[in-house]
Amino acid sequence: MYTLVVIRHGESEWNKKNLFCGWTDVDLTENGFREAKEAGKLLKAEGFTFDKCYTSVLKRAIHTAYSVLDEMDLVWIPVIKNYHLNERHYGALQGLNKTETTDKYGEEQVHLWRRSYDVCPPALSEDDPRNPKNQPPYQKLGDVKLPLTECLKDTVARVAPYFESVIKPEIQNGEKVLIAAHGNSIRALRKHLEGISSDEIAGMNIPTGIPLVYHLNEDFTVHDVSYLGDQEAIQKKITAVKNQSAKSK
Amino acid sequence: MYTLVVIRHGESEWNKKNLFCGWTDVDLTENGFREAKEAGKLLKAEGFTFDKCYTSVLKRAIHTAYSVLDEMDLVWIPVIKNYHLNERHYGALQGLNKTETTDKYGEEQVHLWRRSYDVCPPALSEDDPRNPKNQPPYQKLGDVKLPLTECLKDTVARVAPYFESVIKPEIQNGEKVLIAAHGNSIRALRKHLEGISSDEIAGMNIPTGIPLVYHLNEDFTVHDVSYLGDQEAIQKKITAVKNQSAKSK
Repeated sequence: MYTLVVIRHGESEWNKKNLFCGWTDVDLTENGFREAKEAGKLLKAEGFTFDKCYTSVLKRAIHTAYSVLDEMDLVWIPVIKNYHLNERHYGALQGLNKTETTDKYGEEQVHLWRRSYDVCPPALSEDDPRNPKNQPPYQKLGDVKLPLTECLKDTVARVAPYFESVIKPEIQNGEKVLIAAHGNSIRALRKHLEGISSDEIAGMNIPTGIPLVYHLNEDFTVHDVSYLGDQEAIQKKITAVKNQSAKSK
Repeated sequence: MYTLVVIRHGESEWNKKNLFCGWTDVDLTENGFREAKEAGKLLKAEGFTFDKCYTSVLKRAIHTAYSVLDEMDLVWIPVIKNYHLNERHYGALQGLNKTETTDKYGEEQVHLWRRSYDVCPPALSEDDPRNPKNQPPYQKLGDVKLPLTECLKDTVARVAPYFESVIKPEIQNGEKVLIAAHGNSIRALRKHLEGISSDEIAGMNIPTGIPLVYHLNEDFTVHDVSYLGDQEAIQKKITAVKNQSAKSK
């Protein structure tokens, strides 16, 4: 049986400001760093250890990984950063205020963009500075197609192959892996690993800074999956994420 | 012409306590983190950027790399951690107080261990918990010979081939590289790159947290090399490192 731990980054600066974030590279708040450190302490206390960590190229996830590993005295393990684990790309909504966007486009439309499986927000134009092709972390990727917007389905189509081709072989090779990622890249991974339906996954809320522990069978079917820690507190955190989404629809 | 930047980690907890450190994995002090951040700000202000960073598996160097890159908004670049860039292994002296060691073995002997090119401190025994083979970061390296003690000559014999086989090809491939390392692994690199004599290199002091900038010709001979920043302040820092060594002889 294999163990895999997945964690969503803690609170970011734009969570606080209620802005659509996506691939915008904003940092954790002080509270976000605290959440990550607490997760690291908990994982250590529960006897977990890791050989490798995978994360996105966005600093809120990277700093979450660093903080967790720091608390576990695992600063020395490889941390592999790859854009395939990035948050869902939010297209032209990135940087816009969620409330103002609702006022402009209406509640129903914004809800569709946020919580449907296959409806994309408006795309960025090619020459937009927010186009990943115009940003440093994506300059040297060669001839890959980078998104100008994404629905959750697109994020699944990006995350799942990366997991299958890069991360899964490492786990099969006996490496104990931590993945530090984002609300929607973790949704995508959960859908892929657990076979959750398209309808259900779009409504599933991932709490920030809580380790999600998978035990996987030899054939990579899920033996069991659960959040680590005080279950009541975790439920409150999931409800808070849900309410935050509702508020900003 | 190629550019390469090398930086020694800032003040560590054991610098402050005057203990022999070597491969002991102690963290930066608050002042050490500050030194690293200032180096990052300076590099950014001077227009430097990096594609890849190489560091040791010791957290005082890794955290220096992270802090520099954070200030430069380069959190997303790969940071490759490898024990070939570790500090010189200090053998059985690791963890001992420098003054007490001098009292025990005499000034001349300790000076030989600290400042000769090819005299090793007493070796660790195989079953010593400080033997790298008994420590997590070195468990999965397979059949490599890990040191039980090192003289500077041994450190050169570890650093130079790693630079030649791993880092140099990346630089030749156009990657802008930052190396965050330690007093003696940087001495080793300087000897290798600049052809400094064995006598001279052992007495050369590397200031903490100051970027050392190389411009290298196509054939990797050194075009010029200099520390970045206020030259007078850097000279003071080099003198401070020198005096610290003298005091603790």
